[in-house]
Amino acid sequence: MEIMEQVFVIKIGGNVIDDPQALEKFLAAFAAVEGPKILVHGGGKIATRIGDKLGIVSNYKDGRRITDDATIDLVTMVYGGLVNKQIVAGLQRLHCNALGITGADGNLLPAIKRPVGAIDFGWVGDVVTEKIPLNNWQALLDHQFIPVLAPLTHDGQGHIMNTNADTMASAIAVALSARYKVRLVYCFEKKGVLESVEDEQSVIRNMNRNAYAQLKSAGKLFAGILPKIDNAFAAIEAGVAEVLIGHADDLVQNTSSSTTGTLITA
Amino acid sequence: MEIMEQVFVIKIGGNVIDDPQALEKFLAAFAAVEGPKILVHGGGKIATRIGDKLGIVSNYKDGRRITDDATIDLVTMVYGGLVNKQIVAGLQRLHCNALGITGADGNLLPAIKRPVGAIDFGWVGDVVTEKIPLNNWQALLDHQFIPVLAPLTHDGQGHIMNTNADTMASAIAVALSARYKVRLVYCFEKKGVLESVEDEQSVIRNMNRNAYAQLKSAGKLFAGILPKIDNAFAAIEAGVAEVLIGHADDLVQNTSSSTTGTLITA
Repeated sequence: MEIMEQVFVIKIGGNVIDDPQALEKFLAAFAAVEGPKILVHGGGKIATRIGDKLGIVSNYKDGRRITDDATIDLVTMVYGGLVNKQIVAGLQRLHCNALGITGADGNLLPAIKRPVGAIDFGWVGDVVTEKIPLNNWQALLDHQFIPVLAPLTHDGQGHIMNTNADTMASAIAVALSARYKVRLVYCFEKKGVLESVEDEQSVIRNMNRNAYAQLKSAGKLFAGILPKIDNAFAAIEAGVAEVLIGHADDLVQNTSSSTTGTLITA
Repeated sequence: MEIMEQVFVIKIGGNVIDDPQALEKFLAAFAAVEGPKILVHGGGKIATRIGDKLGIVSNYKDGRRITDDATIDLVTMVYGGLVNKQIVAGLQRLHCNALGITGADGNLLPAIKRPVGAIDFGWVGDVVTEKIPLNNWQALLDHQFIPVLAPLTHDGQGHIMNTNADTMASAIAVALSARYKVRLVYCFEKKGVLESVEDEQSVIRNMNRNAYAQLKSAGKLFAGILPKIDNAFAAIEAGVAEVLIGHADDLVQNTSSSTTGTLITA
């Protein structure tokens, strides 16, 4: 049996980025994770604050944000520039050889503009997972660069597009699974999937499809977590070895063999 | 005799970036340049426009711009995010595998904050050329990534810094000269160094130290061009094989063996 090298694909959300102390703590933990790793970061509220100052009005349709021309320029600046480079500089300070990029760079995440259906979302990109150039990713990882990705992709026609960081992380994990044993780690504000939503200590430490089906039919799980778990199983169906849902503060444990969050496997 | 592989380090200024048509034309030419190449871009006036809207006041001291906290965030957003990613997306459209980065990414351009003398320039970085990690550059070039650099560096202490694009290009050219035959190409708005400033056709096609000394002592050269030529000879002293000063429109010729601009050699 061939032993595949392990890679961690780690996603952090805006709540960590918006809190300088939490971010500093997270970056220290991320820098301490051993072996090849990739960070995908969300945007945070800073884009809205800067957009307000620039007079860029957020457009919503049926509660979904529309990415118009002004908005894509705004998030390209803020996520691809300010947030991404601050994370990179912070990691470099910790001797972690971060390389801050978007899905446009090196064509790492080819995407298509979301087709206009009932809603035209504007410059929103859906990653074309089967077109992800594995050799480009491998070149960066082989040389021990640590890719740090802003939630942006491109359409190959010269346009940058807004892309959800969760789905970006999942697409990267799926593509890399052809050559690596991937653990996809979603950092959020709870320690894991809770059996009882009021009890922070009731983390379900391991979950497979059967266990999930039982928990769901027993009505035990908080409805808000179900899409996250469904996405995790979709990634596993597509070849990802493990998906871990846990707290940002527990990253070091959750990238070890003694995880504290919820480890999801087939 | 060992034959070194040729690399082009190409710098474009803000005048090209500020003009969408000129930029599109330039990117087409850049994409057509054969072999390993690196693009270093300046900032352009868009940062000032966005800064004005954000209420960021440009501070000057003795005519020199001071990079305070608000200004470094501004240029990190605009140069490192918006301008850099628009160039990358434009090159990817042309199947040129651009990878948009700053000197912080992959620690590609270690720098120090300019020491406070008569003026405190703020977050301005001077590249420490001897610390440039050649192996990181080589890893990118070996894999045929095309690095596209925004004029930003870092201090290794977590801070992004503003750095002059001309000197960044020169530092990269010097560092790469240890392993490659480098032609450093400065694109500007004239066809080359002119023997007669009123005559656009009077380009001096070849210049070495002796010729330069003669032209200078004859008082033939336009004073404004002298610092550019001095910098070119400094790069050559430091090991760069060739420096080319020419028009952005002539990039394809100027990266061939039949140059139309001013080719400066030892």
